Amino acid sequence: MKKFENDLILRVLRGSESERTPVWLMRQAGRYLPEYRAIRAKYDFLTMCKTPELASEVTIQPVDIIGVDAAIIFSDILVVPEAMGMKLLVEEGRGGPRLLDPLRTSSDIGRVHVAQADDDLSYVGQAIKLTVKRLNGRVPLIGFSGAPWTLMAYMVEGRGGDFARARALLYEEPGLAHRLLRMITDSVIGYLKMQCSAGVDIIQIFDTWAGVLSEEQYEEFSFVYIKEIVDNLKAYAPVIVFPKGMNRLLREISHCGADAVSVDWTVPIDVAGFEIPQVVQGNLDPAVLFASKDAILQHANRILSAAPRGRHIFNLGHGVMPGTPVENVKALIEFVRDFHH
Amino acid sequence: MKKFENDLILRVLRGSESERTPVWLMRQAGRYLPEYRAIRAKYDFLTMCKTPELASEVTIQPVDIIGVDAAIIFSDILVVPEAMGMKLLVEEGRGGPRLLDPLRTSSDIGRVHVAQADDDLSYVGQAIKLTVKRLNGRVPLIGFSGAPWTLMAYMVEGRGGDFARARALLYEEPGLAHRLLRMITDSVIGYLKMQCSAGVDIIQIFDTWAGVLSEEQYEEFSFVYIKEIVDNLKAYAPVIVFPKGMNRLLREISHCGADAVSVDWTVPIDVAGFEIPQVVQGNLDPAVLFASKDAILQHANRILSAAPRGRHIFNLGHGVMPGTPVENVKALIEFVRDFHH
Repeated sequence: MKKFENDLILRVLRGSESERTPVWLMRQAGRYLPEYRAIRAKYDFLTMCKTPELASEVTIQPVDIIGVDAAIIFSDILVVPEAMGMKLLVEEGRGGPRLLDPLRTSSDIGRVHVAQADDDLSYVGQAIKLTVKRLNGRVPLIGFSGAPWTLMAYMVEGRGGDFARARALLYEEPGLAHRLLRMITDSVIGYLKMQCSAGVDIIQIFDTWAGVLSEEQYEEFSFVYIKEIVDNLKAYAPVIVFPKGMNRLLREISHCGADAVSVDWTVPIDVAGFEIPQVVQGNLDPAVLFASKDAILQHANRILSAAPRGRHIFNLGHGVMPGTPVENVKALIEFVRDFHH
Repeated sequence: MKKFENDLILRVLRGSESERTPVWLMRQAGRYLPEYRAIRAKYDFLTMCKTPELASEVTIQPVDIIGVDAAIIFSDILVVPEAMGMKLLVEEGRGGPRLLDPLRTSSDIGRVHVAQADDDLSYVGQAIKLTVKRLNGRVPLIGFSGAPWTLMAYMVEGRGGDFARARALLYEEPGLAHRLLRMITDSVIGYLKMQCSAGVDIIQIFDTWAGVLSEEQYEEFSFVYIKEIVDNLKAYAPVIVFPKGMNRLLREISHCGADAVSVDWTVPIDVAGFEIPQVVQGNLDPAVLFASKDAILQHANRILSAAPRGRHIFNLGHGVMPGTPVENVKALIEFVRDFHH
């Protein structure tokens, strides 16, 4: 087992003793950081993802600059659809990423294939290896993937939004949806195993668009595939699942067997801790970080005080937003690190 | 009391006997109808809202064409912020409506005032009067407004999205938010009373962006104002409240005293019927209407069968989407009208 200078987050995920609540932030490597923007000014987003030197550099920035307890490899969930054969366009800040020629019919689905992680996504493995080396045991490294439903939603819709076409496909051709979800799930399992081999210490599965599904659809088209991924990955690394917008089903979701469930800001953390027997991650509203320092610390304090003791990883309820003042993020991290029950 | 050829929806709202489930659809007067598009080709959206002849014509179209049990006056929730002093731009299909110079500070809020419905929104009253005359007692007419939080979210953000700036204002300056919500609530109460005087038979309050709030914020910044509106309007017309995306709190929301609660497609209708003692409205996913006729009727049947008997108004879980095939909407309405328990 690897040794870390700071293994707080791993201890919490294993259910061991921890002297304080570990903290990291979704999109901690991102546009709110001037050091990130300096690199982004020279390279486009996908070039950064695909150049291990650059991906590794921005992955480590928040460890150095804001002092989080874990790094998360810099990438995007849509590299998987790209590796499956789709064309990905990322124009950051211009309405989000797009997948060209979205999949709508049976013959469209013939255009994609199960991603071969060792070939199609080897650049992620290289970025991970380089990052592990550069981190040199300071903090653990998190790898990640989109959940199958969230990836399918983008692959059918082509872009973000309310995913009405993707939802329509579930009603119109559930069999076709399952065929696509099968290929995505196999791709994700291979991708995450490759990330573990390359050296990540924790896995997070982002089901960002869980919330547009009905409860029945979530069970049939999302949960079962997430459970399969967790079953296949648990032996390699602790797994965190983030079912954004699906707070009515937290108890059911906890049955996927993940080591932690991450929750968005709309559910009280104590309610989440009651519904979820595992570790709970979250859930400060990223919008708070635009408010005054007093307001930020007050809301962080409320979460730290109400969260289940010893089984909480502090995080936001969604990613850090572009334009967030860096000093506010620093003040938040400092406060969480200094907090003791 | 007015007499209607078809008063099914009013009977259900009053708890009287009804021989079948009444049905209408959010955005039933809209772009999916060729007859609507023919008018829209000649006039912009706001001109249609502000010209009683045109508003009345498109309001009645779905009664004639698809056979719904109620009409809903053609308008937009953002006419209230406009009447309060903001500049509204509606470019249908181009990223949604926008409010220019959004309100961010205390001095910004000085730029808006409580709307004087009889002056600033008199065109809505005229459209209602003309529509009531033209409907000639065929079906009841629904009036509506955005809920205060949803209107505030647009007024602070300027446009749709995740309303991060509006959420940030709640954290940073809750007092300012309450001042704005106070003005909006007074505007909405005046506006809805005017609609009742002009002749609407039912009121619906759309809290389209309830779902971006935490439960505590919903209680403090949305629910209390909705309750105040319901308290003030109940004597004039039955009130339906639509707290989109707030399904964890349906039982609490039912305490606002509305005659019905409308629910989105993500919650099972039987669960909603269990949580809500009043009439339940909803909740077919509008995306279903892009699927096959078989799939549509199967999902409609499931809702009709599971909904609480005698206290259900059939509707979608959100508005009819542009591009929805008209024949699918007609088949749905026919199926609901023919359904008997």
